[in-house]
Amino acid sequence: MGTPSIPKGTRDFGPEQSQRRQYIFDVIRQVYQQCGYLPIETPAVEKRETLTGKYGEEGDRLIFNILNSGDYLQGIDQSEPLQSGPLTPRISGRALRYDLTVPFARFVVQHRNELTFPFKRYQIQPVWRADRPQKGRYREFYQCDADVIGSRSLLNEVELIQIITEVFQRFQLPDIVVKLNNRKLLAGMAEVLGESDKLTDITVALDKLDKIGPDGVRAELEERAISATAIAQLEPLMHLQGSNAEKLARLEAFLASSTVGLDGVAELRWLFDALGAMDSAAITVDVTLARGLNYYTGSIIEVVHPDFKGSVCGGGRYDDLTGIFGLKDVSGVGISFGADRIYDLMAQKGLFPDALARATDVLFANFGEQEARYCLGLLAELRQQGVRAELYPDAAKMGKQFSYANARNIRYVVLIGSKEMEQGKLGVKDMQSGEQQLLERE
Amino acid sequence: MGTPSIPKGTRDFGPEQSQRRQYIFDVIRQVYQQCGYLPIETPAVEKRETLTGKYGEEGDRLIFNILNSGDYLQGIDQSEPLQSGPLTPRISGRALRYDLTVPFARFVVQHRNELTFPFKRYQIQPVWRADRPQKGRYREFYQCDADVIGSRSLLNEVELIQIITEVFQRFQLPDIVVKLNNRKLLAGMAEVLGESDKLTDITVALDKLDKIGPDGVRAELEERAISATAIAQLEPLMHLQGSNAEKLARLEAFLASSTVGLDGVAELRWLFDALGAMDSAAITVDVTLARGLNYYTGSIIEVVHPDFKGSVCGGGRYDDLTGIFGLKDVSGVGISFGADRIYDLMAQKGLFPDALARATDVLFANFGEQEARYCLGLLAELRQQGVRAELYPDAAKMGKQFSYANARNIRYVVLIGSKEMEQGKLGVKDMQSGEQQLLERE
Repeated sequence: MGTPSIPKGTRDFGPEQSQRRQYIFDVIRQVYQQCGYLPIETPAVEKRETLTGKYGEEGDRLIFNILNSGDYLQGIDQSEPLQSGPLTPRISGRALRYDLTVPFARFVVQHRNELTFPFKRYQIQPVWRADRPQKGRYREFYQCDADVIGSRSLLNEVELIQIITEVFQRFQLPDIVVKLNNRKLLAGMAEVLGESDKLTDITVALDKLDKIGPDGVRAELEERAISATAIAQLEPLMHLQGSNAEKLARLEAFLASSTVGLDGVAELRWLFDALGAMDSAAITVDVTLARGLNYYTGSIIEVVHPDFKGSVCGGGRYDDLTGIFGLKDVSGVGISFGADRIYDLMAQKGLFPDALARATDVLFANFGEQEARYCLGLLAELRQQGVRAELYPDAAKMGKQFSYANARNIRYVVLIGSKEMEQGKLGVKDMQSGEQQLLERE
Repeated sequence: MGTPSIPKGTRDFGPEQSQRRQYIFDVIRQVYQQCGYLPIETPAVEKRETLTGKYGEEGDRLIFNILNSGDYLQGIDQSEPLQSGPLTPRISGRALRYDLTVPFARFVVQHRNELTFPFKRYQIQPVWRADRPQKGRYREFYQCDADVIGSRSLLNEVELIQIITEVFQRFQLPDIVVKLNNRKLLAGMAEVLGESDKLTDITVALDKLDKIGPDGVRAELEERAISATAIAQLEPLMHLQGSNAEKLARLEAFLASSTVGLDGVAELRWLFDALGAMDSAAITVDVTLARGLNYYTGSIIEVVHPDFKGSVCGGGRYDDLTGIFGLKDVSGVGISFGADRIYDLMAQKGLFPDALARATDVLFANFGEQEARYCLGLLAELRQQGVRAELYPDAAKMGKQFSYANARNIRYVVLIGSKEMEQGKLGVKDMQSGEQQLLERE
């Protein structure tokens, strides 16, 4: 029998990793709760029909389908050879969730009569995607989402951006940059260029500016049949310089002829003003930001860190998320922290608190039956006082017990042999300094 | 389009339920950590071969299989009609975990060179079973396991039972009864009765004593072809009375001719002695306890509560769990809390802390653009001080804002209109007493 293993793209997390992950989830959870967001949980397994058709053709292919229980081929006509495409919906009625957004929309529509709107929820749960596994991309990973649904106010955006700032502050990652854009501004831009029908092409190309540079973007715009005039007009927007106030002034001038575009500028201006970020380098206007997500209709948010490739948080406003389940005209705005990426970044920079690496504070060495039994009372007392303590379960050689303490990063080892028992004393070895002391029992 | 819904046997958890669930997980986690148990996480999705053949034929049928991605029928010979039985392994290489025990065994074997033994781990994650959904039984539910692997010492059992007591103490459920048995004692019993080959039949029948009574057990034993003499001999064991010390003395006499049986009695006696529970009614010897789990080889643990049908926690010792993955002779012992059942019991008895029902302490009412902007600074200050506070995002009618506060169980609403802004004051309404006060800004 070979060593067992796990499916490609999935991961086991050992004690240290799990504690660090827990720390990340706890911080995010605390900040969400601080701001009045309430937790919900939805099942990992949704009806297939809930998920399919929501993520585009490519997304649909990445959904993990669950085989029906029992004789799933019963009643399936096999007079012609079966094809997997049409067969799937007949043998699989359930699937693993692909993100937390669509299940959230489903939740809101299903429970709309029990909820108070605006409804502020957060959700920290795993999702599954049959993506090709590669560095930093997994088939099972966590999302940490917060959304407000049922309010059009930009105060929600303000709050979400404050949450982002606070979370990264707590992670000791103050160097993040929050990039903001607005879908209306992008729509206005396409309108002014006379290319409204090519809005997606333009934004997809612009979105790649960081990766492929201005020449690359120009080439891609040409390829997507954007007129040379339009490309030339776009040029200055690729190189917007100055403070946020200056960028917004330039955009306002450029978009003067587009109502929707001016609307986008006004929203951004309001937001920067409310955030006190008109001159900020930590929160910036970025017109190339599109996040390739077609359901955003207003604000677009993305967070990057100078030491990390790719975004560590993102989000935006969508005016009709619940529309896919029949509930129209409910505006929402949300963000999602990339916990796995934040983990990688924090590990790379050595930012996890040292205390996380220590599971137990005190280990009672085990000198044998009598001594171990004697230690049980002391152990219980220490635990009562909130000290994380344990007794080595076997009367193994001292060397082995000390190795155990070292491997688990335990600071103090309590040594109570028969002599110490008689005298009501206890030896305490500090594994860091190597010093050993004899103390009174209390 | 109808209202969307979720698959049978799965559940959505709204804010209040999620907070209560989180509370249960947090308490269990804290106690585990207090005792030096370390968290691990394994993927929800395991290779099918890891899971199949580990839970018996019935268990295998309850595993949710995941359809392979892409054209899963490619290369499958369709010259004969397909049968679901043989087809499944060819179109499904992955499955959802059925419990946390088998993935833990897989984890230990896979990572044995990175782990320090004895290895004490806890794991709080969901599992999936294609069980027929019914009251209190779900297809997706959480398990909260702790195991020690690599130590034969009964001190581990002592610790796990202390954990059980502490956890239920914290849940304000001190009336639990911890039932203890030992597989060796059961084996000895079958030996003494001359029915060693019928050990499973006897224990399965005895295990039902609570449900079907002594007459039922007798009938079932007869049906399972246990001799009349043996049944008569078993009789007194069905009605063991007295303290644990007395029960153990009687069992010792009964098992005098069985080495393994006496071994089981000796282990139980050691355990009750170490726990100081020889006369306890909260921790009791129960020879009918078998938990129908064939992998237990020593201690068997089950926790019940007088106000709840079914167990709320269970566990035991297994001497060869990792053997299924090729690593022999590693003894382990573990427990698992039934979080869903504990939830039901606590809800029924109204034991959840009131604070859980309150997500936000303070709501700032929204009187309009200017006033709301003014509140942002105060809001940030309060949050900085650890107060959970939020600003109503829209300038809605006051009645609607107060309803929101009530629905979310928010205690204080801060009212800052243009007058209060001018005067640097703020109105505070206590939603509980209905009283309203005018306070200075600081």
